Amino acid sequence: MAKSLVTGGAGFIGAHVVDSLLQLGHEVVVLDDLSGGFIENVNKKALFIEGSICDDNLINDLFEKHNFDYVYHLAAYAAEGLSHFIRKFNYNNNLMGSINLINASVKHKIKCFVFTSSIAVYGTQVVPMIETATPMPEDPYGVAKYAIELDLKSAHEMFGLDYIVFRPHNVYGSLQNIGDRYRNVIGIFMNQLMKGNPLTVFGDGSQTRAFSYIDDVAPYIAKSVNIPEAYNEVFNIGGDTDYSVKELAETVMKVMGIEGEVRNLEARNEVIHAYADHSKARKVFGITPDTITDLETGLTNMAEWVKMNGVRKTPKFENIEILENLPKVWLED
Amino acid sequence: MAKSLVTGGAGFIGAHVVDSLLQLGHEVVVLDDLSGGFIENVNKKALFIEGSICDDNLINDLFEKHNFDYVYHLAAYAAEGLSHFIRKFNYNNNLMGSINLINASVKHKIKCFVFTSSIAVYGTQVVPMIETATPMPEDPYGVAKYAIELDLKSAHEMFGLDYIVFRPHNVYGSLQNIGDRYRNVIGIFMNQLMKGNPLTVFGDGSQTRAFSYIDDVAPYIAKSVNIPEAYNEVFNIGGDTDYSVKELAETVMKVMGIEGEVRNLEARNEVIHAYADHSKARKVFGITPDTITDLETGLTNMAEWVKMNGVRKTPKFENIEILENLPKVWLED
Ligand SMILES: NC(=O)c1ccc[n+]([C@@H]2O[C@H](COP(=O)([O-])OP(=O)(O)OC[C@H]3O[C@@H](n4cnc5c(N)ncnc54)[C@H](O)[C@@H]3O)[C@@H](O)[C@H]2O)c1
Ligand SMILES: NC(=O)c1ccc[n+]([C@@H]2O[C@H](COP(=O)([O-])OP(=O)(O)OC[C@H]3O[C@@H](n4cnc5c(N)ncnc54)[C@H](O)[C@@H]3O)[C@@H](O)[C@H]2O)c1
Repeated sequence: MAKSLVTGGAGFIGAHVVDSLLQLGHEVVVLDDLSGGFIENVNKKALFIEGSICDDNLINDLFEKHNFDYVYHLAAYAAEGLSHFIRKFNYNNNLMGSINLINASVKHKIKCFVFTSSIAVYGTQVVPMIETATPMPEDPYGVAKYAIELDLKSAHEMFGLDYIVFRPHNVYGSLQNIGDRYRNVIGIFMNQLMKGNPLTVFGDGSQTRAFSYIDDVAPYIAKSVNIPEAYNEVFNIGGDTDYSVKELAETVMKVMGIEGEVRNLEARNEVIHAYADHSKARKVFGITPDTITDLETGLTNMAEWVKMNGVRKTPKFENIEILENLPKVWLED
Repeated sequence: MAKSLVTGGAGFIGAHVVDSLLQLGHEVVVLDDLSGGFIENVNKKALFIEGSICDDNLINDLFEKHNFDYVYHLAAYAAEGLSHFIRKFNYNNNLMGSINLINASVKHKIKCFVFTSSIAVYGTQVVPMIETATPMPEDPYGVAKYAIELDLKSAHEMFGLDYIVFRPHNVYGSLQNIGDRYRNVIGIFMNQLMKGNPLTVFGDGSQTRAFSYIDDVAPYIAKSVNIPEAYNEVFNIGGDTDYSVKELAETVMKVMGIEGEVRNLEARNEVIHAYADHSKARKVFGITPDTITDLETGLTNMAEWVKMNGVRKTPKFENIEILENLPKVWLED
């Protein structure tokens, strides 16, 4: 029986990956510090350890104790837009934590290191973004993700550590934290609708994204380690169709069955158009376009879960390092 | 009078940059933890603070107290080949330390952040390496340098922090630490010759590098802040002519006036040919090919200083994180 460590397994994508791994027959250990995840998300069949990937001693103990075959590394704080203002936290949590895991994985000769990078590594590119394009990340979140990708490649060359990198984008679905005011536009919209608040949109909402339903992402991450052609490769993964944030707002109102107003905020410094080419993932994972969940279906499923769980509080990040140019909406109560 | 912070100012290049800045009339504060530098290197006219760039409180205090116009950030442990084996130390010291400085520079609105990156960001490329090529670093040292470059660009876009990036390569000259067994092939050769030891060469010594004399590097770094066209640009800087390590060994023996043997070690995982295109630096800094110091002249100057100072001990790095594949010579006494 394969034994896997899933970091960030109490988070949204991680918890779904854990479910898929258990279905594939893996024994699963989850490491999560619950900074952004919830213990209720973690499948009872997994062993849950509360702790941080930044705790090197804990990591070493875990690797000593469990003889992991695979590491699925999803733990991160993924608030891309906020990362400019929490630079130090971003690199410490996302990059240094990853380096602890890479070091331990090299030393313990695990079989494969699966890492969720992000479409953020591309920066502003010709769309659709394709894996052969050269990454040019534009924010500290993307820079850290890309540095980890490069570090994994280097660890592979030097020590033979096998890896698989996924670059998901705008994933949504059940178990997502809809109370994070800094990320996940869909969750933010649903929470705002339930609170009777207007939907906040940066700029005029013409920026486009291809939203990805969780079932089109997590199962492939889980089973990738069984696919030799996937080893030491990088994959875009997720939805194909791009929508403007304006259109998204309308569809979210529709599936939630709640009319809301749109409140346009000052545009922020972000990539305008982002959607990804998935031919590579299709070929290697046998994904066909008709297996991809359409937005309205996916949102309907998510809305059902969200309504069952109700409104979430939207606390502020405590240690913002730089306040200059911070979108004002993030300072509101 | 311009006030400048020079991190790593007790180190080789940093100490020369300090000298140049004092000549240009700057008031200079040096921050160095003496992990690789020497207090004797620091010009007496500069204010020396012993401490680490990783100490965020110290950095904040320094920026509060001194109203820096410019930050010259040279502090780093630059042992590229060793960085595979000290991943965590590398990112912590070189990247996280830099992030402390970038955050403070944004908050205190300094006028320009000058950063010594490295030719290591290029990885294996068509030579000569040129600034328009896309970096593809292959080791943790290069990955950290590139991440800092990208982070600076992002801080410029978001907060208007101006920067200048230099990518020097294989710099040599007086004040260099010839006792670091992990880096600076020229210093290593000179130290070995004085000890009567054979010169250690990885592989057959056919790998090539363009060695750069310190006077062709440090003065341009210092005065760059006075050149508006240099702002928010990246520059290769240094020597133009590439030599094989084998040829280098011969020239070093000649200038030292000591015959030595060459001891060929197992080849290591490194870039084979590395030299850089300098047309951009020439244009912006008015460098002409005839101002570039030729290798024998530069080495002769360095040899004079080295002989005056004598043999240096070559201690081992204390906390190597991964021993697998470590070049065996680094474990010798
Ligand atoms: N959701 C997306 O659209 C998306 C897109 C691209 C990439 N990703 C990446 O996928 C991964 C999962 O994202 P998600 O959307 O599920 O976010 P999430 O916040 O729901 O999950 C991340 C989990 O990591 C945990 N975590 C954070 N820092 C930790 C630390 N130092 N130690 C231990 N645990 C820590 C959090 O508590 C949380 O449970 C992240 O790496 C993210 O960067 C997500
Ligand atoms: N020498 C080269 O050929 C070369 C080539 C490319 C880039 N560089 C870069 O130029 C810079 C200077 O290199 P150098 O050759 O003079 O090396 P050096 O070791 O002589 O100087 C680096 C200095 O930084 C100090 N330092 C290291 N970590 C520190 C920390 N955490 N806090 C405070 N001080 C710290 C060291 O004590 C040392 O004095 C480095 O950033 C290096 O990466 C050097």
